[in-house]
Amino acid sequence: MKKYHLMAPGPTPVPPSVLQAMAQPILHHRTPEFEAIFAEVRKDLRTLFQTNSDVLLLAASGTGGMEAAVVNLCSPGERVLAIAAGKFGERWGGICRAFGLDVVAQKAPYGHAVTPEALEETLRAHPGVRSIFCTHSETSTGVLMDIKGFAEVAHRHEALLVVDAVSSLAAAELLMDTWGLDVVVTGSQKGLMLPPGLALVGLGPRGWERAKEARLPKYYWNLLEERKIQAKNQVLYTPAVSLVVGLREALRLLLAEGLTNVIRRHDRLARATRAGAEALGLELFAKATPSPAVTAICAPPGIDGEAIVAAYSQAHNITIAGGQGEMKGKIFRLAHLGYVGDFDILTGLAALEMILKGFGVPVDLGAALRAAEKVFADER
Amino acid sequence: MKKYHLMAPGPTPVPPSVLQAMAQPILHHRTPEFEAIFAEVRKDLRTLFQTNSDVLLLAASGTGGMEAAVVNLCSPGERVLAIAAGKFGERWGGICRAFGLDVVAQKAPYGHAVTPEALEETLRAHPGVRSIFCTHSETSTGVLMDIKGFAEVAHRHEALLVVDAVSSLAAAELLMDTWGLDVVVTGSQKGLMLPPGLALVGLGPRGWERAKEARLPKYYWNLLEERKIQAKNQVLYTPAVSLVVGLREALRLLLAEGLTNVIRRHDRLARATRAGAEALGLELFAKATPSPAVTAICAPPGIDGEAIVAAYSQAHNITIAGGQGEMKGKIFRLAHLGYVGDFDILTGLAALEMILKGFGVPVDLGAALRAAEKVFADER
Repeated sequence: MKKYHLMAPGPTPVPPSVLQAMAQPILHHRTPEFEAIFAEVRKDLRTLFQTNSDVLLLAASGTGGMEAAVVNLCSPGERVLAIAAGKFGERWGGICRAFGLDVVAQKAPYGHAVTPEALEETLRAHPGVRSIFCTHSETSTGVLMDIKGFAEVAHRHEALLVVDAVSSLAAAELLMDTWGLDVVVTGSQKGLMLPPGLALVGLGPRGWERAKEARLPKYYWNLLEERKIQAKNQVLYTPAVSLVVGLREALRLLLAEGLTNVIRRHDRLARATRAGAEALGLELFAKATPSPAVTAICAPPGIDGEAIVAAYSQAHNITIAGGQGEMKGKIFRLAHLGYVGDFDILTGLAALEMILKGFGVPVDLGAALRAAEKVFADER
Repeated sequence: MKKYHLMAPGPTPVPPSVLQAMAQPILHHRTPEFEAIFAEVRKDLRTLFQTNSDVLLLAASGTGGMEAAVVNLCSPGERVLAIAAGKFGERWGGICRAFGLDVVAQKAPYGHAVTPEALEETLRAHPGVRSIFCTHSETSTGVLMDIKGFAEVAHRHEALLVVDAVSSLAAAELLMDTWGLDVVVTGSQKGLMLPPGLALVGLGPRGWERAKEARLPKYYWNLLEERKIQAKNQVLYTPAVSLVVGLREALRLLLAEGLTNVIRRHDRLARATRAGAEALGLELFAKATPSPAVTAICAPPGIDGEAIVAAYSQAHNITIAGGQGEMKGKIFRLAHLGYVGDFDILTGLAALEMILKGFGVPVDLGAALRAAEKVFADER
């Protein structure tokens, strides 16, 4: 018997009470019981997104929510800007190009962040950008980007800011209304501690205004229609009932802990993970602000990152993530996202120590654990 | 304590073993365990669809699967035909029009079926139709349509046939390859006995050929890309892991019963429901072949169909369905779809007897039950 541990940046572990809520006999969506759950979920999602606007639920992966944002804001041929410093930022560009938009790409090397200053410069050089698509926590590189800064720049140029918050919501601070984020997209299987299958899309007033004039074709993703129905605690097409029921329980857990505490916990877990990795002499991949959701670590010289991922799985029954695209083999990624506590971090670091030792890397066993414990102890 | 009974045509009741499978700690999708489950699901789905072609899974409602079919088969401005004899047939037209297609509408009054002969005539009058979209079991009216006949007509006119089998798959006979159905779409929350959130799309060889030339914009619904990845037991975007795990168990249940027996059971439950309704002097709404998934019954003169639906809910804690659109108030619908047995039918009919009596309709209590039992007894 080897206990299974899930330490990948999504899907993340689902709390037992959420699993149990979803295992109840299924409810029909056109019942007062479901409508009461939906109303509670809608209210709590506004708290989570820190917004007074509607947050809509769609039966889809997070990528579906991203596509929904694009087709509800844009018109054919329109100029947009896609910020890409990793695989998920590149996905924005891919979606926009698939729908025939004129995409200005704002890149930074993997491991780095695009800065608001760089965005400002690009917008000056490329006038007429109507929407800017960005990533808050770039899951592929473990970098957190300055979406508050992006929003200020965007609005100076009369562009809307659309944020992929898939791996940042309920992990990093995100103040949708205060920061003026026009659209925020997330998925269920990250900080929300649910199985995958729900996309959540919050639109602010400027987002809704733009949606009225956007002419890209849409049906399943018609957010204006969806908004009318969800205001009545129903959904345009059959909702993912069991995930909504699970979401109610997950939101209760998050709000009982308190949003500030949730974000503090993620920061603390992330700092402990980074301290542990650095205590082993490993290099962090993030050269900019690291994400509180996932830590990307460079594989030691001469060792294949994929071999580390495989060793986690085969020797320890732990799922972590490797590098994507050209980062494959060069990095491995330990997540600390969602239903995660101190001892999960110690587990992940202990496995890392033993794996590196197995690969012949000189390791002071316990060094990473000591460093992580020090972070934890200092906070008490 | 009033036990809850779900008798609506989707979501349908989920078997306990499926709920339990989905309540296990979540698996990561990039693990050998998940890939083995996915491979088993893919194999069993071919049996269920009666096809040698790939059946793809998408995180979406059934409507998302319908949109995926449209955007993967069609090019802007192309002429298509949408068969509509109910709300779900009309949805095909709605999707096609949203994507700028030239839609020929082939209608029949609610409660009636479009016949292959009528289709033949329309295709002669409107040449150049490249795809035909139809509904197998029209959930809103309780009518089953002759998709085998549609396929023959479609192919004589060199058009593809796309079938909404959302409420027919695993309830009515459907032989995708033998009948030459080019695309078959379904959802998880009907005959598959799962919560909503998965769309399933099967494409035959002509469908895949057409997909290569289709120029409607797509990203999340890119089935050619999806097919490449799913052949490796992975999914393009994070799959709805828990629903896939549940689907494995649901498919095991269905195939253990045997597809022929599953279809026979639905036919028998449907006949018992109709016999029960008719024994109470009620009129069936379907004037053509009735669906084995759901029975639409006309409300007795002077009684609001919505009041019957409300009485089921309030007096008996049973969810049934009312009429949609202009059928609202005129009909009510009892489903017998998915995880349903003889005694569920008797429960639904007993409630109906008591409800009608409560509304002052002269009812011979037990008459519907007697008629249904007779159907059941005659089969033993």
